[in-house]
Amino acid sequence: MSGFVSFVSSGPGDPELLTLKAVNRLQNADAVLFDDLSSGPILEHARKGADLVGVGKRAGRPSPKQSHVSRLLVDYAQTGQRVVRLKSGDSGLFGRLEEELVALQEAGIEYEIIPGIPSACAAAAAAGIPLTRRATARRVQFTTGHDLTGELPENMNLAALADPQATTVVFMGKRTFPKMATGLVQAGLPADTPAMLAEGVSTPNQTITRSTVSELAKQLEQEIGDHPALILYGPLADL
Amino acid sequence: MSGFVSFVSSGPGDPELLTLKAVNRLQNADAVLFDDLSSGPILEHARKGADLVGVGKRAGRPSPKQSHVSRLLVDYAQTGQRVVRLKSGDSGLFGRLEEELVALQEAGIEYEIIPGIPSACAAAAAAGIPLTRRATARRVQFTTGHDLTGELPENMNLAALADPQATTVVFMGKRTFPKMATGLVQAGLPADTPAMLAEGVSTPNQTITRSTVSELAKQLEQEIGDHPALILYGPLADL
Repeated sequence: MSGFVSFVSSGPGDPELLTLKAVNRLQNADAVLFDDLSSGPILEHARKGADLVGVGKRAGRPSPKQSHVSRLLVDYAQTGQRVVRLKSGDSGLFGRLEEELVALQEAGIEYEIIPGIPSACAAAAAAGIPLTRRATARRVQFTTGHDLTGELPENMNLAALADPQATTVVFMGKRTFPKMATGLVQAGLPADTPAMLAEGVSTPNQTITRSTVSELAKQLEQEIGDHPALILYGPLADL
Repeated sequence: MSGFVSFVSSGPGDPELLTLKAVNRLQNADAVLFDDLSSGPILEHARKGADLVGVGKRAGRPSPKQSHVSRLLVDYAQTGQRVVRLKSGDSGLFGRLEEELVALQEAGIEYEIIPGIPSACAAAAAAGIPLTRRATARRVQFTTGHDLTGELPENMNLAALADPQATTVVFMGKRTFPKMATGLVQAGLPADTPAMLAEGVSTPNQTITRSTVSELAKQLEQEIGDHPALILYGPLADL
């Protein structure tokens, strides 16, 4: 008897930004394996009696090894339960989804993937700006600011990331942004390119601070704080 | 007496991929101005008696001028109504959002922006693959395949778009992809880079076809069909 896993993207944090499909899957789950960023009021949609299992993954803190999370997921599914694997934002964006899909496939367990609102889209909406602009930002790119060791990835495409005609969103990049900004400016990005730090997007802790690439790098050298954050830079609209 | 406009992102098409917040705003709207791609069952959430106003924007067909849409939006809001401006996908991604925001600001009308699920995220989820991959795709980029005249934009950053280590999603690019692919290969992208055509994502017409960049370009030279589509290429997982 093998269960079924729904990978449910919970969106940026605001429980009202859950989709109808996500709510349905939470209501029908026997077990919910969640990351810290998709906890809180979102879990209130789960039915009473469902197993709610936190599996770590919080910005800046140690979290369980990915292989342990994948094994736990397989274990739950193999008891025949309907399992929801809740991931913040959209699970396909920097969510380590592939490792868990492979583990389920190797175990012969069926699954579905339910997309969600990327935190980058929620950050732009909260700031009142579009990610794309008709003439000046026809390309949008999302990158991660750290690799598995927590450092700036070594083989970043700095030329692509230094394009002043694209809107760039850096996920999990607060700690490494000062170093990244140095590389971007060396690769040709003007130091005064508009930048934005979006923390705790769509939660009660939300703050959005506008500055420039060089100013933001200086600020983050001093103080990075505790909240998960996105960094946006490029031809950001000033509305 | 001035109204209030909610820019509501309707997601890729599946009405179950609406957010709770989007449903709430639709239920409370006096008027809903919608694009063709966000019509159908999604509009059933609007209350009886609400004005439902189609404002065009369908792939491959003539649509009202953007300035007319903006003016209509202002007119509706100025009657004091609660207006929902429904846009498919996420309104901040290739949704011509900025023009409408500026028009509302000039008219002194308040608004909010509710993010939604980008069709790119829904396409990847439907194909069962992540947009990012741990070692091979740490960057994701979205670009448009046409400018205001319907042609391939002139100043595309082909070097950035030809990076085989990024997942790229081309919006509205079916007609121009053969030309774009030539440019990508000249800029260094291997012609056999995995590619995917995703049409009618999350609708009953959904089809997903996997091939390579050069094969897809050849296919789209012959036949582009009617459905809105996304093109994905890069180190796409083969799960």
